[in-house]
Amino acid sequence: MKARVTITLKPGVLDPQGKAIHHALGGLGFDGVEDVRAGKVILLDLADGTPVETIDKMCEQLLANTVIENYKVDVL
Amino acid sequence: MKARVTITLKPGVLDPQGKAIHHALGGLGFDGVEDVRAGKVILLDLADGTPVETIDKMCEQLLANTVIENYKVDVL
Repeated sequence: MKARVTITLKPGVLDPQGKAIHHALGGLGFDGVEDVRAGKVILLDLADGTPVETIDKMCEQLLANTVIENYKVDVL
Repeated sequence: MKARVTITLKPGVLDPQGKAIHHALGGLGFDGVEDVRAGKVILLDLADGTPVETIDKMCEQLLANTVIENYKVDVL
């Protein structure tokens, strides 16, 4: 089975990477960009039947820094 | 409008970050992880009515390195 973990910074946490992308898009002439937030996506190929709770544990223990990041698990 | 751009390495491109995560998950006792691939996600807050073609152009010109990366645009 495959799962996708999407990790994004919590609202209010400064995102210099997103800011840099926003600035660069403006420089390339893309107007109308109001905000950009950068995050990570981790694609996991897991043994069939792995419970979602196990993936949550992976996020809590390793994949996400839950002080500043939110994560979302999607089983594909 | 909001859009999500997901950027992943093309199959066959070495992914040291994914390998490191895979190794670390094994060290934490998570068995049954067969493969891990790491990528990026960029959340765009755009002016309403921005066409998907414009977002594709942003990806081609700035967000993704299309030599080694695939991208996927989802309008949310």
